[in-house]
Amino acid sequence: MERVYNFSAGPSALPVEVLEKAAAEMLNYGGTGMSVMEMSHRSAAFSEILADAKALYKELMGVPDNYDILFLQGGGSTQFAMIPLNLMTKTGKADFVITGNWAKKAFQEAGRYGDAQAVASSADKTFSYIPKLDAATFRKDADYFYICVNNTIYGTRFRPDNLPETGDVPLIADMSSNILSEVYDVSKFGLIFAGAQKNMGPAGVVAVIIRKDLVGHAMDMTPTMLNYQTHVDADSCYNTPPCYGIYICKLVYDWVKAQGGVAAMEAFNKEKSAKLYDFLDNSAMFKGTVVPEDRSLMNVPFVTGNEELDAKFVKEAKAAGLENLKGHRTVGGMRASIYNAMPMAGVDALINFMKKFETENK
Amino acid sequence: MERVYNFSAGPSALPVEVLEKAAAEMLNYGGTGMSVMEMSHRSAAFSEILADAKALYKELMGVPDNYDILFLQGGGSTQFAMIPLNLMTKTGKADFVITGNWAKKAFQEAGRYGDAQAVASSADKTFSYIPKLDAATFRKDADYFYICVNNTIYGTRFRPDNLPETGDVPLIADMSSNILSEVYDVSKFGLIFAGAQKNMGPAGVVAVIIRKDLVGHAMDMTPTMLNYQTHVDADSCYNTPPCYGIYICKLVYDWVKAQGGVAAMEAFNKEKSAKLYDFLDNSAMFKGTVVPEDRSLMNVPFVTGNEELDAKFVKEAKAAGLENLKGHRTVGGMRASIYNAMPMAGVDALINFMKKFETENK
Repeated sequence: MERVYNFSAGPSALPVEVLEKAAAEMLNYGGTGMSVMEMSHRSAAFSEILADAKALYKELMGVPDNYDILFLQGGGSTQFAMIPLNLMTKTGKADFVITGNWAKKAFQEAGRYGDAQAVASSADKTFSYIPKLDAATFRKDADYFYICVNNTIYGTRFRPDNLPETGDVPLIADMSSNILSEVYDVSKFGLIFAGAQKNMGPAGVVAVIIRKDLVGHAMDMTPTMLNYQTHVDADSCYNTPPCYGIYICKLVYDWVKAQGGVAAMEAFNKEKSAKLYDFLDNSAMFKGTVVPEDRSLMNVPFVTGNEELDAKFVKEAKAAGLENLKGHRTVGGMRASIYNAMPMAGVDALINFMKKFETENK
Repeated sequence: MERVYNFSAGPSALPVEVLEKAAAEMLNYGGTGMSVMEMSHRSAAFSEILADAKALYKELMGVPDNYDILFLQGGGSTQFAMIPLNLMTKTGKADFVITGNWAKKAFQEAGRYGDAQAVASSADKTFSYIPKLDAATFRKDADYFYICVNNTIYGTRFRPDNLPETGDVPLIADMSSNILSEVYDVSKFGLIFAGAQKNMGPAGVVAVIIRKDLVGHAMDMTPTMLNYQTHVDADSCYNTPPCYGIYICKLVYDWVKAQGGVAAMEAFNKEKSAKLYDFLDNSAMFKGTVVPEDRSLMNVPFVTGNEELDAKFVKEAKAAGLENLKGHRTVGGMRASIYNAMPMAGVDALINFMKKFETENK
């Protein structure tokens, strides 16, 4: 069997060039006589991989010099605790926009450590839009303001021109599912984290960009490994980092750079997603679930309105080599995740299959 | 350049068969048309990998049914906090044996959450032995008793027949650097954890074996991701686990099983280490640093007594394809880590090189 088009929401498709390079280097990385998995994290070879990964990520994201970059473990779910433990330490207040399950989980975990307030939510319409925000409802003395920029399950996003205006309150962002897909101005954020497993590498690495002034104020109870200061001081090598995952991230960064960087990825992702949304907007059978202005470039949920037909579609698509199109149970229907690594040919194949399915199931 | 003999203390050598299989399956695992890195952690293919890894680890370690097995992130250093946060919750007391840096770090972190007491230490002689323990000095009402079974830096180990007699107090063990190398009776322990990156797989996975009655008593402040209950309830899939690392662990478990299991590994490791220790005991130039009865089967530190000669040895060994023999700065000299994946040929090559070096540097 050949490679399939993998529309998985995460972990998800990686560029085939990255996988080929990883396979070729598996037994002997760069003439070292060993795999990256077998290297001491203090070795010259791995230190170079880590430094390159950091420098490439800084360059691709346009990270200003007053930010630190960390490669940590524990995924976004550990960030949900690290953020309040490290940042909710002046007034103990933080404001949240609830745009889906992940924002809600971050909000709930923060509520265990301080005064977390939801300033808006789109739960009323199954998170199918980004709430209109009124800055007057934001607390001026909050330690931070939290958003989930792209909502994997619901297919919505805060556009780069639609970020909350939080003034001096640091804006904290979960960009797990749209990192490196579109240009965001890092200087508008206090902290940006992203689990690698959607647009950046394998599960088990979370990349954190944190403004330096936000480091060093953790609560006393904070576990050493959950204190950003620990990892800033040790340049992500306080303990053994997830070396192989960082290496794959580095290969993905190389690939993104070779594509022309994040601006080029954005143009490509807009073209890919527009093609799919245009098809949906004109289809008699399939409909997108998200209001046009808040649509994600990465995750495209759609439904036929008939559960049996949805199930038939997912099954037949799988048989045709279009994998993981089943939607999240809270939305139903289908979801096509078209991350950076999804080629246009994959989107074309999906659209062609949908057309065929429409004709066959009129 | 060919593969080298890699004596790294960790991350460290993996079986070449495992790396070959991983490389061969990188672009298309088992006919799925995708890499294990690209699979949803909820997919049938990955669920099978996870279930197989768990079943194999249970079988290899002889884990009784009243224990749970978890594959987590954050390494041993996160366990240093998870253990007190989850277990130091009845009397708030825990006893420790300080046999090296890692035991000390675990002790210090526990001391942030409760009454941690060191019942013995071998710091007086640079941790070159395992202290003789007097059970009368153990606190009968402690929530747990903690040891680091194999001390990577210093090359000592608690033999399976020399474990502390803790009665009803759960014995908690860090087995990061000798897991699967020698038979230990799991039923003597309350919890055993091991970072994968020495004998089990790549960095970024920590395997935890925990007696079921010890789950569910975490302190209120415990971050959700640091509560064992979270991961027991979700069978290590509360959030996206480090899927690719778990897959490599599974391949290593397959390999250990094919070698004859842990008892066969133990026989092989005893033969390998005995050869090296015998050489050291009879050498005019090289000397082991550990008392014979407490010697590790995995990590063999040795010195010439002359720092310049040590440095020359490490440099020339590297040129001869014997990598990462430099000792830890606190011990000096050299250290050969000869984990499960180190073939006898590697140990023979090291001994032959030492003989040659002796002759050339008389």
